[in-house]
Amino acid sequence: MKSSALSALGRRTAPPPISWLMQAALSRPKLISLAAGFTDNATLPVEISRQVLNRVLCPPQTGRPALQYGITAGETNLRRLTARHLHRLDQSSPSSSSSPENKSRAKTKDEDDKCHSPSRVLITGGSQQLLYMTVEALCDEGDIVLVEDPTYFVFLSILQSRGLDARGIRLERDGLNLAHLKAVLQGLKKSGELRRVKALYLVSYFQNPTGITTSFEKKCGALKLLKTFERAAAHPIYLIEDAAYRELRFHGRDIKSALMAPGAKERVIYAGTYSKPYAPGVRVGFGLLPQPLFTTVLHIKGNHDFGTANLLQQLLAGALETGLYRRHVAKIEERYGQKAQVMKQALAEHFPPDVEIWESGGGLYFWGRLPKHIATGVKSQVFRTALKNDVLYVPGELCYADDPARRKPDHEMRISFGSASEKNIREGIKRLGAVLRKFL
Amino acid sequence: MKSSALSALGRRTAPPPISWLMQAALSRPKLISLAAGFTDNATLPVEISRQVLNRVLCPPQTGRPALQYGITAGETNLRRLTARHLHRLDQSSPSSSSSPENKSRAKTKDEDDKCHSPSRVLITGGSQQLLYMTVEALCDEGDIVLVEDPTYFVFLSILQSRGLDARGIRLERDGLNLAHLKAVLQGLKKSGELRRVKALYLVSYFQNPTGITTSFEKKCGALKLLKTFERAAAHPIYLIEDAAYRELRFHGRDIKSALMAPGAKERVIYAGTYSKPYAPGVRVGFGLLPQPLFTTVLHIKGNHDFGTANLLQQLLAGALETGLYRRHVAKIEERYGQKAQVMKQALAEHFPPDVEIWESGGGLYFWGRLPKHIATGVKSQVFRTALKNDVLYVPGELCYADDPARRKPDHEMRISFGSASEKNIREGIKRLGAVLRKFL
Repeated sequence: MKSSALSALGRRTAPPPISWLMQAALSRPKLISLAAGFTDNATLPVEISRQVLNRVLCPPQTGRPALQYGITAGETNLRRLTARHLHRLDQSSPSSSSSPENKSRAKTKDEDDKCHSPSRVLITGGSQQLLYMTVEALCDEGDIVLVEDPTYFVFLSILQSRGLDARGIRLERDGLNLAHLKAVLQGLKKSGELRRVKALYLVSYFQNPTGITTSFEKKCGALKLLKTFERAAAHPIYLIEDAAYRELRFHGRDIKSALMAPGAKERVIYAGTYSKPYAPGVRVGFGLLPQPLFTTVLHIKGNHDFGTANLLQQLLAGALETGLYRRHVAKIEERYGQKAQVMKQALAEHFPPDVEIWESGGGLYFWGRLPKHIATGVKSQVFRTALKNDVLYVPGELCYADDPARRKPDHEMRISFGSASEKNIREGIKRLGAVLRKFL
Repeated sequence: MKSSALSALGRRTAPPPISWLMQAALSRPKLISLAAGFTDNATLPVEISRQVLNRVLCPPQTGRPALQYGITAGETNLRRLTARHLHRLDQSSPSSSSSPENKSRAKTKDEDDKCHSPSRVLITGGSQQLLYMTVEALCDEGDIVLVEDPTYFVFLSILQSRGLDARGIRLERDGLNLAHLKAVLQGLKKSGELRRVKALYLVSYFQNPTGITTSFEKKCGALKLLKTFERAAAHPIYLIEDAAYRELRFHGRDIKSALMAPGAKERVIYAGTYSKPYAPGVRVGFGLLPQPLFTTVLHIKGNHDFGTANLLQQLLAGALETGLYRRHVAKIEERYGQKAQVMKQALAEHFPPDVEIWESGGGLYFWGRLPKHIATGVKSQVFRTALKNDVLYVPGELCYADDPARRKPDHEMRISFGSASEKNIREGIKRLGAVLRKFL
């Protein structure tokens, strides 16, 4: 039997680039991984979860529904709590509708309410599942999705497996380079490819991998730009806002989501998650989607699994309702702030000065940029030497789309302070610094 | 904007046929639903789950891993326990390798061990997710999957959404009509379509919707037949065995799975679940897959959600390890046996004699066949009158593929004793019987 029975998708689906890194880690017991996107182990809400689950499962009235099938869109209470939670975040962030211009406020508030309505909330198996299903709902083979350059590499894997093209939009320290976004859209219009463009994907808070946060103004600007090209595309172009790291903030104030931008109601897909701020082992995420896309993704979810496990949804609802969730988030904000500080000091002490470090005010990652002639990819001397010295990072090249318009940058690294202990952060950075000094 | 941004898949994905039924149910508070595939509410393992979760979440050593990310393939312990559980089921079923012919036993056992190896187990979000990903891995638009006629309607929805053709294979009381399977394969060979055939999908235990169980001999026969057509297909043709209802057995002995058939190791995909026997709200299923398909589906799972929620996996592992799972299954077997008996008696009392009833020795459903000229579909007089009289069933027509080779049968009904109370089973069957008597 020479021919394979696999589908085109099956043949295209590649092993995750990170799995190689993980295996490398397993074979070296002394290795310190600054690569994993795992969250901090010590602060996982073990006791909170036990408390809430005991409450959910104690009287049969709440215990049985938690163990029964539910509704594909998600548990009604959790959808309501999620909408409210998000609404609060967006309302309390600066330059929101609490601005002094009270005249326009009533209308804006009404608009916001609609954007944050529980009926727009879909509960999913992490935000990852929402991203997957959204791409399924929107994109045919050969379609184009605009992404940040660099971007979240598992999203690139989804696109690749489905035969889609990614086009990178340059990043600045406050988010997308809007001039470049415009130039790319114009180029696609000229080449007749605009009809294939379905969405722009933004990891808008403490971006994976760079740590960059997109300003609200830039979200509005991007949405406006997409809108102006829709006529030529002959269909809507959506803005997918991946806010996975939003609540892991230890510096500065929260920024309004794209849901608060003018025109958001019809065009913004907001992907959020409780995995990062609460617990990855309680894999519950959510999306807020415009109609008719909401209904389409809901039906796709019906075919995937007809609804995320009710028990997990009840756990999250309980944590949100009792305020335990909020208290937990406050705790981890402090914890990550501390770990980021430890990494910052270690970097200052051990890294050669010609490595540019992009610190972040939240999330799990710092971004290191070496001089351009020094490669950091999985086949590079730097990477191999680091591995030999028992320290691991994520090579920047993995986070760049295969974009024919530019050579893939290969001189950067994502360094995580998420899961390593403070001691290991210090030691890991020390080892990595020593490796880099050999090459710089 | 006239044109939609939806993909072909997005446009094809239809609302689940059952959602209409569910909405009908919601608007009539006195309605008794014999339609839902929900499991028995009263026996859901609330106390067991609480116990196990308290144990998992009490010492931080086990609590933290349960709340952290895990491995995409699933928790190592649960994979091992699942393999062992399945191996035991297959070993203890009649005409397995415990037969008197001891000479061939060693080799068979070795073969079995390989088929039931933990390394072949993939933990998923219910068996539904496994079915979805398997279809993704195997089928391109226009491909063909052979299904039982009738079959599980959500599987038909998956095929439909992905632009695939289903071809129905006739059923007999002990499973597939092998002569018809052969005739269909020969027809496809003749018409040059065999290259498009990727799999045969069997709901082999207490089938949804008919309650039929496929004999082991027929599983072996089907696998052998598929094999003989592979040369002409120029690729492997897989047997997907959906064993979702296997452990809901209240009469007779278990039957060996297709994993025990000669040649299974390369061609059988076994889809199992803990949702039905344990709890649908703890949505954990699993697949056993041959290589290289296992790896492909694993990578697809990486893109979907990189692993089912660890907390649920630890809960199941704990229940299996302590024997609480087994005790629970014994309890629900008894419970469903009782409810099936109640339905049987009510049917004898209230149904007109010219309705043929297929009783089942397990699962959640009985299958009712009216005389052929009496329609039962959602637009039929029978269905509307039943709804008016506050009783709901699943029309048989929903369970048939759109097969150009035959007119879709429309004179049957799936009647569930799964979620209704005994009182409601009696009253529901009484109402339905009265409706049927008007037409017969």
